[in-house]
Amino acid sequence: MNKWVVLHYLSKAMLIGSVLFAVPALVSLCFEEYRCVFSFLLVGAGVAVVFAPLAMIRRKQKGRIYTRESMAIAALLWVVFSLVSALPFYFSGVVVHLWDAIFESVSGFTTTGASIFSDVEHLPKGILFWRCFSQWIGGMGVLVLAIAILPSSNDAMYLMRAECAGPSVSKIVPKGKNSAAYLYLIYAGMTIVTLVLLRVGGMPLFDSVCHALTIAGTGGFSVKNAGLAAYGSGYFEGVATVMMILFGVNFSMIYFLLARRWKEIRRNTELKVYFGVLGFAALTVTWNIYPYYQNIWKSLGTAIFQTVSIMTSTGLAAADFNLWPLFSQIVLLFLMFVGGCAGSTSGGFKVQRLVILWKSGIVSFKKMVYPNSVNLVKSNDKTLSAESVHGVMRYLVVYLCIFVAAVLLVSLDNADFGTTVTAVFSCLNNIGTGINEVGPMDNYVFFSDFSKAVLSLVMLLGRLECLPLLMLMLPSVWRRDF
Amino acid sequence: MNKWVVLHYLSKAMLIGSVLFAVPALVSLCFEEYRCVFSFLLVGAGVAVVFAPLAMIRRKQKGRIYTRESMAIAALLWVVFSLVSALPFYFSGVVVHLWDAIFESVSGFTTTGASIFSDVEHLPKGILFWRCFSQWIGGMGVLVLAIAILPSSNDAMYLMRAECAGPSVSKIVPKGKNSAAYLYLIYAGMTIVTLVLLRVGGMPLFDSVCHALTIAGTGGFSVKNAGLAAYGSGYFEGVATVMMILFGVNFSMIYFLLARRWKEIRRNTELKVYFGVLGFAALTVTWNIYPYYQNIWKSLGTAIFQTVSIMTSTGLAAADFNLWPLFSQIVLLFLMFVGGCAGSTSGGFKVQRLVILWKSGIVSFKKMVYPNSVNLVKSNDKTLSAESVHGVMRYLVVYLCIFVAAVLLVSLDNADFGTTVTAVFSCLNNIGTGINEVGPMDNYVFFSDFSKAVLSLVMLLGRLECLPLLMLMLPSVWRRDF
Repeated sequence: MNKWVVLHYLSKAMLIGSVLFAVPALVSLCFEEYRCVFSFLLVGAGVAVVFAPLAMIRRKQKGRIYTRESMAIAALLWVVFSLVSALPFYFSGVVVHLWDAIFESVSGFTTTGASIFSDVEHLPKGILFWRCFSQWIGGMGVLVLAIAILPSSNDAMYLMRAECAGPSVSKIVPKGKNSAAYLYLIYAGMTIVTLVLLRVGGMPLFDSVCHALTIAGTGGFSVKNAGLAAYGSGYFEGVATVMMILFGVNFSMIYFLLARRWKEIRRNTELKVYFGVLGFAALTVTWNIYPYYQNIWKSLGTAIFQTVSIMTSTGLAAADFNLWPLFSQIVLLFLMFVGGCAGSTSGGFKVQRLVILWKSGIVSFKKMVYPNSVNLVKSNDKTLSAESVHGVMRYLVVYLCIFVAAVLLVSLDNADFGTTVTAVFSCLNNIGTGINEVGPMDNYVFFSDFSKAVLSLVMLLGRLECLPLLMLMLPSVWRRDF
Repeated sequence: MNKWVVLHYLSKAMLIGSVLFAVPALVSLCFEEYRCVFSFLLVGAGVAVVFAPLAMIRRKQKGRIYTRESMAIAALLWVVFSLVSALPFYFSGVVVHLWDAIFESVSGFTTTGASIFSDVEHLPKGILFWRCFSQWIGGMGVLVLAIAILPSSNDAMYLMRAECAGPSVSKIVPKGKNSAAYLYLIYAGMTIVTLVLLRVGGMPLFDSVCHALTIAGTGGFSVKNAGLAAYGSGYFEGVATVMMILFGVNFSMIYFLLARRWKEIRRNTELKVYFGVLGFAALTVTWNIYPYYQNIWKSLGTAIFQTVSIMTSTGLAAADFNLWPLFSQIVLLFLMFVGGCAGSTSGGFKVQRLVILWKSGIVSFKKMVYPNSVNLVKSNDKTLSAESVHGVMRYLVVYLCIFVAAVLLVSLDNADFGTTVTAVFSCLNNIGTGINEVGPMDNYVFFSDFSKAVLSLVMLLGRLECLPLLMLMLPSVWRRDF
């Protein structure tokens, strides 16, 4: 691995990241929370002081970036940036234990939304904003931001692939750098639309900004303990539902929508399956929770909001689904696994992978029964290579290994079975809520430091889709220099 | 599909199956349980009357057996034979509801050992024997028995592959028919050894026979409510542990052991991993349950017995592990998934598949990080084809789909999360015990008929490793005749 290239890009991305601390500092200043202002500025300045000289180092040999370098950059960037971002929580005094701060920070950047705070309404505004803002940054990624801002480079696509969600990254426009810029433009535009819609409905400006950021990143941190339900109007839940659905769609589709390239949208299998699964899940949950609410519209509305919130990995709650029948809970757990579309801000396994698995499964089943038949695995009218199908299967295997290992480690805390399994599942898929003791009205503060560390790692693994971080653990990557 | 060939083999195997009913009839006669004698003879005779004429039909065209025919035969045989074998439970009056009888019968043949009886000690001896005997037959398979008995045929290997456990069936001797006969010889021999060892320790003859049969089939039905613990001597648990370990080993290895072909045993990776996983699991569980028992030898003994019992999919209980810490329960659940070796009587995913997944995972990971490296997936010193690796991955995907679908359906009963998930998991891996309400001291009687039907199907899918039964659900298999 070319370590100099890794250090160079890492430092540049961290420098850009250091500027981001100015935003919450400004917000804190508006609310006259001087300790918070100081914390954010201190951390931002510290990062800049450490990484500015490193970014200046001239590379000894001009090296290209390949898969392993880009993965190392993405993995290191996420780990370092999450750790650094935990410091404002600690310095501002809202969190006493460092592991709590790290858990909250990782949960923010990975757009998980699992929290250690039982009461968020008493937190300083600057901290509340920072939680939501970190989800917004994490949704699209710090590295993609760096690519969009930094001078053009041939390496952009490799870098984007390491951070973006899904089995393949589709270029919106031929150049990787421009793709990154377009992605952030669409992202920012849609966030502003959400903000305006929430504000129009009468939500206070600060709350609107925070909720717009958290919905855009499909994160799930709220500034109210009761989430959107605190505003007592179905309008906000409606807006959130529509926007969450959009943020769970592949951003290329949004681009095609704006560019009126209908053909590309029409032939996208992932999109159809995404809406199909959502619709089916919402209807079955409605049917299942109707006896609980005894009101068809209330059931339907809650079911739609909750399935969308879970499937897009946002994790905002409209109801305490811990009280729902088990069937609905299992449907929600299944949606956690499915996740949103590839190339969106949502987590999970991604609909596209599921489509590929399903189609290749049908094809090989037919092949087994009728050995002479010829069948190709197609997606979006294109034939998929055997390699991409096996890539998805391999990802599933890695995903399961991490899941099992994490459940084993967290089970040492001796919480109940449902809590342990769904806490890990929820963190791995970047949702934030599970069932039993980690239900939508609960938090993660009761876990031991060890479990918090494991869950933080699991969230990072989930957000980066496992491989980049696993690669860092391979000793030979660090030894060899080829 | 060549339907005549399917019908022909199915009928022949069912005829051989009909003879098996004479054995429990004889046992019932010894204990003067005339209603049971009558039930067994009636069912046996009924099966013979129905299938004898069908077996006589001359095939219109001489057809060879390929994968799809052999799978159809295996799947139909298991479904029909399980249904028929449920009738003695019903006719003898020990079970009132037909679905309970079917559940018990399927649980027997698939060697699951999940029961609907809360008190087995009051059952007629003939029924107790039938439960254990069905596990013995199911362990090696009715079809393999038919192959061993019927005149030689070129189709033997195809048929065995459809019923035997694991990703590949190794021929012990060149001819498929002889392999089947050797398998049953080894199987019967080891069962007799178990019987003698139990009898020598002072267990009553009837109990020894039943326990020998259930241990050999790695089933888990006992004739005592408290299982082996009822005899109050560690000797029986020791014998059971050793024999369960052996029955969880690939039977080819037992053959090689008898034939003194040490080289084949030494280079078998699966065997090493099997013992490695068992040892590691037993030690971690010992460490974890020590605070509960406060006695190192008691902890060690219980941990070894329980891990062996679960990993080999026997499901006999030495302790109520519902009371153990969660970590130990998770270890046991993991062992349920792993299962025994391919080509044994145990259930689960099989160690061999896990070895293949692990090795291919390492290889493709290295390939990703170092694109120019050349790595081959090897098992037992042989290079594995890409196809066999993908076959294992596909099996995992199918396995997971069935698991998720079954959990969704069973969750409609609204039991708690742990009960629902582990009941399905336990049935799919043919273990028989889970945690919470389906723990080692509980039974499955509280489930609805619908859930019992789903769980019965899941047990059959698990025993036949999914594909044969799924194939029957493909409409085109029945339509086309090529």
